[in-house]
Amino acid sequence: MLFAAAPLAATAQTTADSIAIRKLYDEALAHGQSYENLRYLTGQIGGRLSGSAQAEQAVQWGKVVMEKIGLDRVYLQEVMVPHWVRGAKEKAQVKGSKGKGLNLNVCALGGSVGTNGKLKAQVIEVQSLKELAALPADKVKGKIVFFNRPMNPLYVETGRAYGEAGDQRRSGAAEAAKRGAVGALVRSLSLAHDDFPHTGTMRYEDNVTKVPAAALSTNGADELSQLLKADPSLTVELEMSCQQLPETKSYNVVGEIKGSKYPEEIISVGGHLDSWDLGQGAHDDGTGCTQSMEVLRLLKATGLRPERTVRAVLFMNEENGVRGGTKYAELAKAAGEKHLAAMESDGGGFTPRGFSIEAEPATVRKVQAWQPLFRPYGSGEFVAGHSGTDIEPLKEQVKALIGYHCDSQRYFDIHHTAADTFDKVNRRELELGGASMAALIYLISKYGL
Amino acid sequence: MLFAAAPLAATAQTTADSIAIRKLYDEALAHGQSYENLRYLTGQIGGRLSGSAQAEQAVQWGKVVMEKIGLDRVYLQEVMVPHWVRGAKEKAQVKGSKGKGLNLNVCALGGSVGTNGKLKAQVIEVQSLKELAALPADKVKGKIVFFNRPMNPLYVETGRAYGEAGDQRRSGAAEAAKRGAVGALVRSLSLAHDDFPHTGTMRYEDNVTKVPAAALSTNGADELSQLLKADPSLTVELEMSCQQLPETKSYNVVGEIKGSKYPEEIISVGGHLDSWDLGQGAHDDGTGCTQSMEVLRLLKATGLRPERTVRAVLFMNEENGVRGGTKYAELAKAAGEKHLAAMESDGGGFTPRGFSIEAEPATVRKVQAWQPLFRPYGSGEFVAGHSGTDIEPLKEQVKALIGYHCDSQRYFDIHHTAADTFDKVNRRELELGGASMAALIYLISKYGL
Repeated sequence: MLFAAAPLAATAQTTADSIAIRKLYDEALAHGQSYENLRYLTGQIGGRLSGSAQAEQAVQWGKVVMEKIGLDRVYLQEVMVPHWVRGAKEKAQVKGSKGKGLNLNVCALGGSVGTNGKLKAQVIEVQSLKELAALPADKVKGKIVFFNRPMNPLYVETGRAYGEAGDQRRSGAAEAAKRGAVGALVRSLSLAHDDFPHTGTMRYEDNVTKVPAAALSTNGADELSQLLKADPSLTVELEMSCQQLPETKSYNVVGEIKGSKYPEEIISVGGHLDSWDLGQGAHDDGTGCTQSMEVLRLLKATGLRPERTVRAVLFMNEENGVRGGTKYAELAKAAGEKHLAAMESDGGGFTPRGFSIEAEPATVRKVQAWQPLFRPYGSGEFVAGHSGTDIEPLKEQVKALIGYHCDSQRYFDIHHTAADTFDKVNRRELELGGASMAALIYLISKYGL
Repeated sequence: MLFAAAPLAATAQTTADSIAIRKLYDEALAHGQSYENLRYLTGQIGGRLSGSAQAEQAVQWGKVVMEKIGLDRVYLQEVMVPHWVRGAKEKAQVKGSKGKGLNLNVCALGGSVGTNGKLKAQVIEVQSLKELAALPADKVKGKIVFFNRPMNPLYVETGRAYGEAGDQRRSGAAEAAKRGAVGALVRSLSLAHDDFPHTGTMRYEDNVTKVPAAALSTNGADELSQLLKADPSLTVELEMSCQQLPETKSYNVVGEIKGSKYPEEIISVGGHLDSWDLGQGAHDDGTGCTQSMEVLRLLKATGLRPERTVRAVLFMNEENGVRGGTKYAELAKAAGEKHLAAMESDGGGFTPRGFSIEAEPATVRKVQAWQPLFRPYGSGEFVAGHSGTDIEPLKEQVKALIGYHCDSQRYFDIHHTAADTFDKVNRRELELGGASMAALIYLISKYGL
C-alpha cells in the first residue's frame, strides 16, 4: 500500500507541535466533554451487552453525540451480533457438611448455557487446565471443576496477569466437559480480595457437551477452597437461567473529519460500545468510546484540522464476539480504504501512561521519537506491544496498531463486575486520556507514518 | 559535614541492584502491609487532628506497629502542638432576596475563631488578595469577603494549581480583616465540582482582628457567585463554634534499623500522623505513614540490611503548625546527627510516578542516574523540586530532601474533606508506592549521596 510522503521527518519535534499539543490538553482540561458524555451513557443507558435494548440505545446515543460535534460524516455499519442473556436465576450454594447453606457470590460467564433447573455435584479444585488434564478420569467425571489459579500479583502491569490467568475462564468449561465434568466454577480474574464475581466471555467447542460455567468472587473462591480442604466431598448446587438467543442486528457507529491534504489516508481511533451487563460499562469501555469521540471534538474545537482523515469508531460486540471489529476491517478492505493507523482505548479511563505500538520496528521507532512531546503530560511511556481487540482484525491493512495505555492498577478490580460504574472514573484522568490520544492522532495526521 | 565515602559510584546500576529492587517490589506486592495498617488507622482511629484523643491513639498505634516489625530502636519525640477544635456548629445560610434560606456547604478553616453566636453580613466577592487590596475601604468594611478564585485546571500536576490558589485560604481572613471585613468565605481548593467543603490551615496576624473564616464547596461557591450577580446586597449568616484550646503534649513516632557499615549516617523516611478532622486522613497522610513504616518492614523481610541507618518518622502536626517536623530537625541538630537524606510521602497513596529531589545539582544528577532502575515499575519520573513540609526544617542538615511522587489527579478532590477515606485507596497503588520508596532508600543506603 502506498502512503503520501510525510512533509517533515516523523522525528521532527517542532515548537509548533508542542503548541498544538498544549492546545489540545488545554481544551480537554478546561472544556472536555468525555466525562459528561460518559455520565449519560453509564447513568441513562447503563450496561449494554450486544443484542440488548441498551446496546441499541447506545448506538443511537453515539450517533447523536457525533452529529453534535459537527463532523464531515457520521454513519452506522450494520453487523449481526450474538445475543446472550443472563436470566433472573444465578445462585450457587454449598451443600457439604462444612459450610452447608453458604451462598457463594457467583455470576454466569458470558455465553454459558443455563443449568436447566438445579445442578448439584461434587467439586474438584484445580489450578490449571494442565492439572485438570493430568487428573484420572474418575476424579473428574460427574463433578464441577473449580479453577482456582489467582492472577499473579507480582506483575506491575496487571494486564499481563490477566492474560496469563484467562485460559481458565475462556476454556475451562470445555476442557472440563471433555473429561466428563458437569460444570465449571472459575475464580474471578481480579487482583482484589472482595465479593464481586467477574463475568467475561467463555467458549464452547464443537462436539463437546456444553456445561454451565460461572465465575466466583475471589473471596468466595478462597472460602470454597478452604471448605474443600475440610470436606473434599462437599457438593455445590448451581442454578443459572442464562441462555443464548438468536443473533440480532446491531451497528458500529462511525464519525469522521476529512483530511485537508490526504483525505484518502485514514487514521481511526475507537473503543467498544457494548459492555457486560452487570455494571454500567464505565471503564470497560464507556471511557474509550467517549475519549474517541472527544479526539474528534478536540481537533474541531482547537481548529487543528488534520491533514489526513481521522475517524472515531464505536465498535459493537467486543466482549463476546468481536463482530464489530471484524466487520469494520472487512468493510475497509472491501472499500479499498487506506488505513494508516488504528488506535484503541480499552484499558479503562484511568490516569494516562502512554501508548503501545504494534508495527514494524522502524514504525515503532518513528512513533517513539515523539515521546518527549508527551512526557510533560505524564503519558510518555511508548512501548512496543499488543494494542486492542477491536482493531486487531485491521492488522494486515495498517502501518500501525496503537493502544492507549492508562494506569492499570485499578482496572481489574472492577472489570466485568457490578462495580464498573461512573463513580470509579475521575474526570481529569479521563479528559487527560482523551487529550493524549488526540495529540498522537494529530501528529500522525500531520507527519504520516 | 563529612560523609563516609560511597563504596561504588552513585551511578552504578548493577544487576545486583535490579535484583534487590525486584525483591522489594515482590515482597510489597505479595505481602505488603501498608494497606491493612491503613485500614486500622483510618477505620479504628479515624481523623486525628493535633491535640485530639485520636491523635494520641495514633501515636500509640504507630509505636506498636513499628515495634512489631522488630526494629533496632522505636521511640517517641515529645512535642507541644496546637489544639484547635471544630465545635458542633458550622453553618452558613443565604439571607438575600434571591436564594433565601439556602444552606451553603461550609466548614471552618483550621485555626479560625468561632462566630460567637451568629454573624450576618453582606458579601463581597473577589478573585484574589490583590483585588481585595485595590477595593475602596467602604466596599469591604463590615462585610464578609468571599474569595472565589478557582484552582487552575490547565496544569497537569495538580499540586501546582493548589500552590497558586492557596494564598486565599491561608491569608484571606487576615487581609480581609485589615480592610475592616468581619469574616471570610473561601472557595475550596479543589478541581472537582462537588459539595464537599475543604478545610485547611489559615493564619492570623498579630495586631489584626481575628475574623472567622470558612471554606465553601466548589458547587457552593459557584452558586453563591451566581446569587451575588442577581442580588449584590445579599447577606450570609455564618455560625461556627470552633475554638483554639491550650497547646497540648504530643509526639513524633520514630523507628530505625541501624546501618551495618555506617550507622552514624541517617536516612529518614516519613509521613505525618496527624490529619484534618473531617475525614479519616487516608490519603492525607495515613498512606505516607504506613508506607514509611513499610519501607523498614520491606528491608527487614527481604534481608536487605541497609549499610546506613534508615529511620521511619511519623511526624505530628504537619497540618496546622509543623511542630513535629520542626522538633525533629532541632533534636537532630542538637544531637549532632549526620542526616544524609530525608524522604517524605505526603501527596497521597495513589499510583507511583517517581520522586522530587531538593539538593545541589550534582546530587540531583546522582539520584537521577538511578531512574532506569525505576522505570519498569512506573515510578521513573525523577525531577528536581520541593519535597515535603515535615522534612523542610531539616534542609540545612541533609544532602538531599526527597519527595515521593504519586499520581496527582485524584488527590485534591478529597484533600482535607470528609471524603478522604480508606475506600479511596487502592491496595496495589499504595503498596507499589512503599516499594518505590524502599528501593530508593535502599540505593542511598548502599551508595550514599
